Amino acid sequence: MLATVLHKPGDIRCEEVAEPKILRPTDAIIKLSASCICGSDLWPYRGLQPVDAPQHMGHEYCGLVVEVGAEVRTIRPGQFVVGSFCLSDNSCPHCRFGFQSSCEQREFMSGAQAPYARVALADGTLVATSEVPPAELVPDLLAVSDVLGTGWYAADAAEVRQGSTVVVVGDGAVGLMGVLAAKEMGAERIIAMSRHASRQQLAREFGATDIVAERGEDGVSRIKELTGGVGAGSVLECVGTAESFDQALACSRPGGTIGYVGVPHGVSFDGQRLFFGQKRMLGGPAPVRRFLPDLMDRVLQSRIKPGKVFDLRLPLAEVTEGYRAMDERRAIKVMLEV
Amino acid sequence: MLATVLHKPGDIRCEEVAEPKILRPTDAIIKLSASCICGSDLWPYRGLQPVDAPQHMGHEYCGLVVEVGAEVRTIRPGQFVVGSFCLSDNSCPHCRFGFQSSCEQREFMSGAQAPYARVALADGTLVATSEVPPAELVPDLLAVSDVLGTGWYAADAAEVRQGSTVVVVGDGAVGLMGVLAAKEMGAERIIAMSRHASRQQLAREFGATDIVAERGEDGVSRIKELTGGVGAGSVLECVGTAESFDQALACSRPGGTIGYVGVPHGVSFDGQRLFFGQKRMLGGPAPVRRFLPDLMDRVLQSRIKPGKVFDLRLPLAEVTEGYRAMDERRAIKVMLEV
Repeated sequence: MLATVLHKPGDIRCEEVAEPKILRPTDAIIKLSASCICGSDLWPYRGLQPVDAPQHMGHEYCGLVVEVGAEVRTIRPGQFVVGSFCLSDNSCPHCRFGFQSSCEQREFMSGAQAPYARVALADGTLVATSEVPPAELVPDLLAVSDVLGTGWYAADAAEVRQGSTVVVVGDGAVGLMGVLAAKEMGAERIIAMSRHASRQQLAREFGATDIVAERGEDGVSRIKELTGGVGAGSVLECVGTAESFDQALACSRPGGTIGYVGVPHGVSFDGQRLFFGQKRMLGGPAPVRRFLPDLMDRVLQSRIKPGKVFDLRLPLAEVTEGYRAMDERRAIKVMLEV
Repeated sequence: MLATVLHKPGDIRCEEVAEPKILRPTDAIIKLSASCICGSDLWPYRGLQPVDAPQHMGHEYCGLVVEVGAEVRTIRPGQFVVGSFCLSDNSCPHCRFGFQSSCEQREFMSGAQAPYARVALADGTLVATSEVPPAELVPDLLAVSDVLGTGWYAADAAEVRQGSTVVVVGDGAVGLMGVLAAKEMGAERIIAMSRHASRQQLAREFGATDIVAERGEDGVSRIKELTGGVGAGSVLECVGTAESFDQALACSRPGGTIGYVGVPHGVSFDGQRLFFGQKRMLGGPAPVRRFLPDLMDRVLQSRIKPGKVFDLRLPLAEVTEGYRAMDERRAIKVMLEV
């Protein structure tokens, strides 16, 4: 089959690879309904993460089960499923505590920018719908797999509640999903930090009440102005750079909470700064599995339309253009037809 | 009057200083019932914090109000009061949010190792008892001012609840108060990390269910053994060194919470380590004012005896020996008779 392989930074190709097979009795093989490119795929693409050997890319997925291993009990061929980018058994103590992304058996998904993919720990990882959903819901269900689940976790970790004042740092796809999540959780004020007209527009559609285009100290001043000099109770850090963390720390009030989901690159925190700032912080790879049933329900009931975050659709064969468009920020998030 | 002055690291003296006066109309002057030495006083004493000029030491206090400024409304001469080491107006947005230690007008108390002291922002800072309490409760009420309030905040920030499994890193006075706090909050399992027999004993009296004497990797292994391989849901970091933070991070479960109250010295956190560890963290100077009324009630009802943490009592004139005893860990916490 044709699938996406990153050979070295900047060199992403659609090329012939072997079809996936059941390797362990707890695996499933799915036929993807669609796939997409993640902001985190850009780290190795940009050379900010090493590429030691050619990598099969893609970790966001939904589709039809075509085969299951001998020990798979709850997932059956023919079912439509969504899974998280973190594969988990959903039964270990960390999973039961709601932190499936720290599952004792955790693996990270790969190879999902392809027509078929192997999903390990199928029973724990995959959530099936009761019927095969209509095609128009595929982008929304695909978004649940990572980008929405991650934005949702940012809002959950930042303790967004009914009436909260929220700042979202980062107008990438995850940040925009963070806006949607904050809105769904009942936030009263959602301030999206964004300098791009198309992203500002989408942020407003998803529920942002205010847009702050400034960054750095000016950005902090604007947030302070908008919050009566206090800062926000909940801040979603959806980038992962030193600058974005500085922004998040400076925008939150003492006793406020920062949920961070951008993988930190080149970031360290000074102990005394965190101490005297009194910011509560929780981050990490999102335990999307915790949220999957709820988020899939919201999509199936057409209560949310996270798939709007895909502003460019390309056939898998044009994946090179997809990475380029996201790298150059011409596209927010690219969906791949597989 | 005779009071405590730190001239340079290692050089602490009891010497003649001017009596405090009302400087602002929101001040009060109190006659201290007792004072004490704080673990944080040891940072400048040990030269780990600069001493640019002679410093009047002491920030823990309780006693009788002798004079108030013209704008003080709720505090009256003759009242017995306890206040926090953080002076706060208790009315700004940060105070109303329960983070009085980040009050817009925050000052840090000083000069309380003395017979008299000036307390700024008296109405916001001080809490009066309805009657002058019996002398035997003075050590307990003095402890509320900082060491108990700080240990309590560590447990509160670490989200200790009914049934929690708690690890307390640090067997100093604050750590021991953290044990007491966790017990009061209903923790089921309280693991105190301590290598000193007398401190282990006190930890057990305050409610520790387990003692771990090992440190470093061995300490982490013991905690893992005691928690079924999972780690603790709540960890109280009560030291402030790189080693103690390492311990706290390694002992807590993914999704668990670290409350840290030891002022970090030479500590920085790697972003990716925090991210992939998925530890929730909140620290800072304790907003003791939030807890004062409740903690004073518990003392006045003889429900808790935090004053047991004072294992050495000295007259103020012998303050030099007091600092030395704490520096050499011969004493857990020294009470000074003023």
